[in-house]
Amino acid sequence: MRDANLLDELRQLLGPGGLSADREALTAHETDWSNWGRSQPLAVARPRTTEEVSRLLALCHRAGQAVVPQGGLTGFAGGAIPAGEALALSLERMTGVEEIDRDAATMTVKAGTTLQAAQDAAEAEGFLLALDLGARGSCQVGGNVSTNAGGNRVIRYGMTREQVLGLEAVLADGTVIDAMSKLIKDNAGFSLKHLFIGSEGALGVVTRIVFRLHALPPSQNVALVACSSFDDVLAMLRRARSAFGGRLTAYETMWRVFIEAAHEANAALRDPFPRERPCRVLIELRGEDEVRDRGDLEDFLAGQLEALPGTEAVVAQSGQECRELWSLRDSAGEITRRLGNLANLDVSIPIAHMGDFVERCRETLTRRWPAGRTVFFGHVGDGNVHVLFGSPDFPAGEKPGVEAAVYDLVQEYGGSIAAEHGIGRVKSAYLDRTRSAAEIALMRTLKRALDPKGILNPGAVLGPMS
Amino acid sequence: MRDANLLDELRQLLGPGGLSADREALTAHETDWSNWGRSQPLAVARPRTTEEVSRLLALCHRAGQAVVPQGGLTGFAGGAIPAGEALALSLERMTGVEEIDRDAATMTVKAGTTLQAAQDAAEAEGFLLALDLGARGSCQVGGNVSTNAGGNRVIRYGMTREQVLGLEAVLADGTVIDAMSKLIKDNAGFSLKHLFIGSEGALGVVTRIVFRLHALPPSQNVALVACSSFDDVLAMLRRARSAFGGRLTAYETMWRVFIEAAHEANAALRDPFPRERPCRVLIELRGEDEVRDRGDLEDFLAGQLEALPGTEAVVAQSGQECRELWSLRDSAGEITRRLGNLANLDVSIPIAHMGDFVERCRETLTRRWPAGRTVFFGHVGDGNVHVLFGSPDFPAGEKPGVEAAVYDLVQEYGGSIAAEHGIGRVKSAYLDRTRSAAEIALMRTLKRALDPKGILNPGAVLGPMS
Repeated sequence: MRDANLLDELRQLLGPGGLSADREALTAHETDWSNWGRSQPLAVARPRTTEEVSRLLALCHRAGQAVVPQGGLTGFAGGAIPAGEALALSLERMTGVEEIDRDAATMTVKAGTTLQAAQDAAEAEGFLLALDLGARGSCQVGGNVSTNAGGNRVIRYGMTREQVLGLEAVLADGTVIDAMSKLIKDNAGFSLKHLFIGSEGALGVVTRIVFRLHALPPSQNVALVACSSFDDVLAMLRRARSAFGGRLTAYETMWRVFIEAAHEANAALRDPFPRERPCRVLIELRGEDEVRDRGDLEDFLAGQLEALPGTEAVVAQSGQECRELWSLRDSAGEITRRLGNLANLDVSIPIAHMGDFVERCRETLTRRWPAGRTVFFGHVGDGNVHVLFGSPDFPAGEKPGVEAAVYDLVQEYGGSIAAEHGIGRVKSAYLDRTRSAAEIALMRTLKRALDPKGILNPGAVLGPMS
Repeated sequence: MRDANLLDELRQLLGPGGLSADREALTAHETDWSNWGRSQPLAVARPRTTEEVSRLLALCHRAGQAVVPQGGLTGFAGGAIPAGEALALSLERMTGVEEIDRDAATMTVKAGTTLQAAQDAAEAEGFLLALDLGARGSCQVGGNVSTNAGGNRVIRYGMTREQVLGLEAVLADGTVIDAMSKLIKDNAGFSLKHLFIGSEGALGVVTRIVFRLHALPPSQNVALVACSSFDDVLAMLRRARSAFGGRLTAYETMWRVFIEAAHEANAALRDPFPRERPCRVLIELRGEDEVRDRGDLEDFLAGQLEALPGTEAVVAQSGQECRELWSLRDSAGEITRRLGNLANLDVSIPIAHMGDFVERCRETLTRRWPAGRTVFFGHVGDGNVHVLFGSPDFPAGEKPGVEAAVYDLVQEYGGSIAAEHGIGRVKSAYLDRTRSAAEIALMRTLKRALDPKGILNPGAVLGPMS
């Protein structure tokens, strides 16, 4: 009865095309890339303005109706799955770059804009929107902000949070928080934007964003290095940071298991080193002068070859060769597909312990599941390692066991069970592996203060509230 | 009666030297550098450990006793003044660097450590703690974090917030929130650290911090440029950002009024340009190669002299000359002292409008107070301008009028009334010039959720709560 009234009111508010309850729309909005489960939403709402989002939430708040905000549905943590017959609130009609301010070096953009569209608009004005990730063509900037997305350039530019100068968000009761500051320095009161960044839609719905932009570095240089040990990988990282400063834009590490799997996936892969070397590192520099940076990179590597016996290196001599070296790292997608039924875990470990962690993780998993196969690779400069575990005939029912085993190890090393993918629904039961009881209690205090009826993305991040 | 009991309990908890109520101690803790007012605290507590802070707050919470956290007392916003007979909670005995992790490039430090001591410890290990400000020898890192201090390197490295990977804070009821993550990527639940950064001790007491460290850039180059207009200052800023990327570490602008005041303050000042040029810009590059960076800077300026008629520039050829050029900018302290009774305002303005803002601000103030004198200078790359207004015989009673006039203009331009100095007690009555009613209401919701009895730094930031 209540729902019928509410749907009528929403239909009236949003106009034709603004609310769908047909089979096709419901199916398209029932899950994300996590493939964790499916849940049919009550309906799919597609507001066009912040005002409509505000009025929609006010109506749902009055009715006690759960609402799950949705961006491009590219998340791996199930944070956008509309569990419990929630209303799916899609931002897909709130798109467009509103302004690029060349003096302030900022971009004002609506939350439903794809990351790729925002990147392209920045580049057309000679700027870099520093956020970048594989799903760029599908993911939306509102989702990137709500999940504090990581990606390929974190070592140089930081996470999404570091790119956000201001934002607009709508609270559970429909209150609009306009914190659209373009200011780099703004210490006037508590910082509200950080409540909404990375809280996965559980504290408010992000509707507009002011991103800071960076100068577009015109040059790119890439090297691939084979190391004899993970200790050498770390020693070289320390020296690379101090040799290159802000020019170091990637320091990606692939363990031998990754290299083997990459060669199986693609026999034509260009890889200049013997397959059995323990680690590969891809180093990327972005800067203002290509020739000079290449000379610096070559000098640096000559020093490393001398200091770290057994190290080998190649430096790309053209854009084509840069792409070829990146293609080894980019095999991750193909490896994931070939591994079959899979646990795909995204964790952070204090950098000094990453080598140990990887060894113990492999040992633990292969002892318990000898048929399974483990693959490791990661953004070592950020302490982020991706753990793939699976095989074509690995029973799906074993997945929670694999997750628990890895997260127990993460806890032992003081790491995070969610480096860049968030908690969502997939990891909410494991939050206590990485957060203390006092931290979780404070998160619940915030949730109750901002969303007392618990209508915003219920179950995400914190699990059931009572 | 209640207070007597509480003081006994606190004395017992903190041991000899842990609680002082003698005249000297009370006087030393009754104000800060804002010189806004004095208020004698109930007593001065000096805990040595987080556990003691926790038990102290639990006792005060039970008793409803107000507590004002104090660092080095160098704030300009009165945020550490123990109004209303609050207990002064000084962190001065919680000092020391606990660890520098060279692999993770992090530093773990207790809140009462001076910024200078933390900087020196980082530098001794070959790292840069990017936070820097004039009060470095007196201010404490806990205060820097609680106020989200800005300073000299924001254009390259961001505010204090950007340097904090993790922290430990104690809530009003004594609950310890241990969020001492060293991880760059950590998306496990709502971000709690940002609640405590920049909230001026009103939501919790910061007790320990994990800072991220940067590679120490070995080279420094400095140029001083005279520009014909503020439009030229902005045009050159855009080009400098794209020419130098991460090497641009300062872009400080001084208006003619500043230059005149600087010459009056110091006749021996080295300044190579005719005094009447409208603007000076100090450009600093930090990088890996001094000679090469100097060549880049000279090439860049040659281009600017051609593109922007009337521009003149000098490039320092030695460390000594770098210091000489900086001394012009560093005249700010001496100018402030000489101006006498003074309004010293710290605001942010969207960069494109800074030139206009300065003109209108001067006009407005000199029309109303023809006897007063206005001086402008700022971190233009960050949108931050400092407004000094005063004269030796300017009546102190006029100060609120000056503040209101400037903040009204800031509001008109969509700026912030607190760029880097915070709100504290000095600006709490003006918070509505820069934050909407909905934002202030949400801040109050947070305050009530985290500190329901209102014992933590009452009156700071939000003014009276009821």
